Amino acid sequence: MALDPYTGVRDFYPEDERVQKYIFDAMRRAVEAYGYEEMNASILEPTDLYTAKTSEEIVSKQTYTFTDRGDRSVTLRPEMTPTVARMVAAKKNMLPFPLRWYSIQNFFRYENTQRGRLREFWQLNADIFGVAGPEADAEIIKLAYQVMTELKAADTDFEIKYNNRNFLTRFLKETLELPTEKYKKILQILDAAGKKSDWKEEAEESIGLEKWKKLLEALSQESLLETLLTSEERKYWYKIRDYLKDAGIKATWDRQLTRGFDYYTGMVFEVFDTNIENKRSMFGGGRYDNLVGQYGKESVPAVGFAMGDVVTRNFLETHTLLGKLRPSTKLYLIPKSVEDIERTEKFANMLRKKKVNIAVGMKHTDRGEHIRTALKLKIPYFIEYSREMETEGMVVYKNLTKETVDMGKKIEISKLAAALKKN
Amino acid sequence: MALDPYTGVRDFYPEDERVQKYIFDAMRRAVEAYGYEEMNASILEPTDLYTAKTSEEIVSKQTYTFTDRGDRSVTLRPEMTPTVARMVAAKKNMLPFPLRWYSIQNFFRYENTQRGRLREFWQLNADIFGVAGPEADAEIIKLAYQVMTELKAADTDFEIKYNNRNFLTRFLKETLELPTEKYKKILQILDAAGKKSDWKEEAEESIGLEKWKKLLEALSQESLLETLLTSEERKYWYKIRDYLKDAGIKATWDRQLTRGFDYYTGMVFEVFDTNIENKRSMFGGGRYDNLVGQYGKESVPAVGFAMGDVVTRNFLETHTLLGKLRPSTKLYLIPKSVEDIERTEKFANMLRKKKVNIAVGMKHTDRGEHIRTALKLKIPYFIEYSREMETEGMVVYKNLTKETVDMGKKIEISKLAAALKKN
Repeated sequence: MALDPYTGVRDFYPEDERVQKYIFDAMRRAVEAYGYEEMNASILEPTDLYTAKTSEEIVSKQTYTFTDRGDRSVTLRPEMTPTVARMVAAKKNMLPFPLRWYSIQNFFRYENTQRGRLREFWQLNADIFGVAGPEADAEIIKLAYQVMTELKAADTDFEIKYNNRNFLTRFLKETLELPTEKYKKILQILDAAGKKSDWKEEAEESIGLEKWKKLLEALSQESLLETLLTSEERKYWYKIRDYLKDAGIKATWDRQLTRGFDYYTGMVFEVFDTNIENKRSMFGGGRYDNLVGQYGKESVPAVGFAMGDVVTRNFLETHTLLGKLRPSTKLYLIPKSVEDIERTEKFANMLRKKKVNIAVGMKHTDRGEHIRTALKLKIPYFIEYSREMETEGMVVYKNLTKETVDMGKKIEISKLAAALKKN
Repeated sequence: MALDPYTGVRDFYPEDERVQKYIFDAMRRAVEAYGYEEMNASILEPTDLYTAKTSEEIVSKQTYTFTDRGDRSVTLRPEMTPTVARMVAAKKNMLPFPLRWYSIQNFFRYENTQRGRLREFWQLNADIFGVAGPEADAEIIKLAYQVMTELKAADTDFEIKYNNRNFLTRFLKETLELPTEKYKKILQILDAAGKKSDWKEEAEESIGLEKWKKLLEALSQESLLETLLTSEERKYWYKIRDYLKDAGIKATWDRQLTRGFDYYTGMVFEVFDTNIENKRSMFGGGRYDNLVGQYGKESVPAVGFAMGDVVTRNFLETHTLLGKLRPSTKLYLIPKSVEDIERTEKFANMLRKKKVNIAVGMKHTDRGEHIRTALKLKIPYFIEYSREMETEGMVVYKNLTKETVDMGKKIEISKLAAALKKN
């Protein structure tokens, strides 16, 4: 009998789950500050939901798709957006817009685990539906920034880049008059620019030196792309910049940014780690105004982003932002002798009524072993309870967060709960 | 394109997810008060984990089992206990005992949905490992009680019954000398007693009048079963009762209680709804000292219980304990006119820094529609922000939790955050 989990998924022992919880709590605080409400759906979806939508590659090669005992094809969700779009389409006329939804849930992709990729990951998804204006685009970028702030990242630890993929598309199609095939090819090359050193040579080869020069110029000069925009578009676009500035968020217009997914229809953005050893895109999102319409009768404007647990944890570790995470348990409590068990249980009951979380040591071994257990569990305080303490109304409690285990401090029982809540 | 979720699973729109969160938060508070730490694992497990363990019925007929793209048989977990036992066995020598673990996760069973059964449900699982004494049995029952208390249930709303399934087994095997087949049959009959009106007739027919009379006597009289116990067993058994009494928990020794699962080895308990219209077992648990040993090399004593979301929600609804659940968003904020958008965004940013969760109304329709949206979202306060307010340093905020929408109250901006946090 193998004791390992299934290939490519993780067991979360309490110390691992504590990291997940730390990350997810920060995400929750960030998105709830902007009025986003949590929703959820099953991880099992009808396979229909994915076929012919979004990325064909993911559906045909990377999903967990199987037939149930009733001959229905079902899929373990590889991403949240189709589910959310389905749910919005299903109740469109009853839902209050703007709709702000988020979820922190798990997803499956059949990845090649030899390359160190995971088959199950967790992800925050946050989306706003029903707003076609720049406030929504800006809000989603602000949300992403807020998550980073809640994770204690400094402004220098990451970089936000944004773009409108239509500007680039229009330049390629209308100004450079590239045929569809070339146009798709060049988008791919630009999208992979960060990962390949020879992308410029590849691009030049693909469309020729003259057009490549023009493209390079457009990518580097704001004014050249601006001339492509109608005054309405320009106004919309600079509003996003203004809102971000008002909120004190530094974001760069990166005219090369496109993001891979086909469903984006306007603004796209990405957050990059600035650490030299880990310089890469961490997560991103954008506007996708047509997806809900693909499921329902009417389209609904939408902007959103997704952020994974693995990349977030890596970021926190590289920037040493995790710190020492402790359980919510404040006190490890043991009876001094077998005669003190009932007394100790009563004492624990009393403290729990004062909202102190307590683990009672039950193995009745020596104190040293109990203290080692408490240290391993990272519980901050320790008490060995006895009849004498009960009589005297005073207890001795040890603080286990210090370098060495001390003799302890004496305190009146009535003041104990408040003292324990400090750490 | 069907907009429904897969058969037998649920979509959780924010108002549904709010109920889940309310229940799960209560569960978390209860178990963390006793030092239980959250853990998790993937919903995908190797099928091996279930075959030949626990309930054969569940594995062969009720699981979602399929073959992955690499020809491995995988199963969507139908329960948590095998996963937890696997994880304990895998790291037995490194883990600090007593180990207190909990999880609140989802599970799949291929049920017949025509009978209104769900295929995916959520469940709290809480287990203590490494303690062979009665303190652990009592603690698990206390935990179950604590969850009910956190859910605001009164002592009269539910009833806790407990038993040691070995006592009954021994009486049937040794005193009544029933052959294995009869013994299994009678256990089944006793287990289903609450659901069938003719169970007594069935039992009498199965083992004969004389033995049936003896059994009835043993079930109703404590002293008769006691004579079967060694003094050690009796001491252990009454300690559980004492610990529960010390904690102020009323629990009845129900000598007929067995619970269906084969893996229980000692104490078993169940919590019953006392509501006449819903009188039934809600959830339960017990001691299972052999399960970890089936996965690893050594056995580890264990006691635990599991509690589902559906039965809990039903209970709360029948006893009207849910109340009106609101989102964490405190304020629905709109700009008075299009000119006030940037001003309003800045105002929101300022309040968010003071930990007020705010949804900004972005559709720029009339105030009436915005208020209706805010009411639908159950957000308690509403402000329409303007240049005048900014200049004056005073805002008017409406309290939407009242019967009718009032004119609002004027307040200094510096005092607003504190006022909004009250509801």
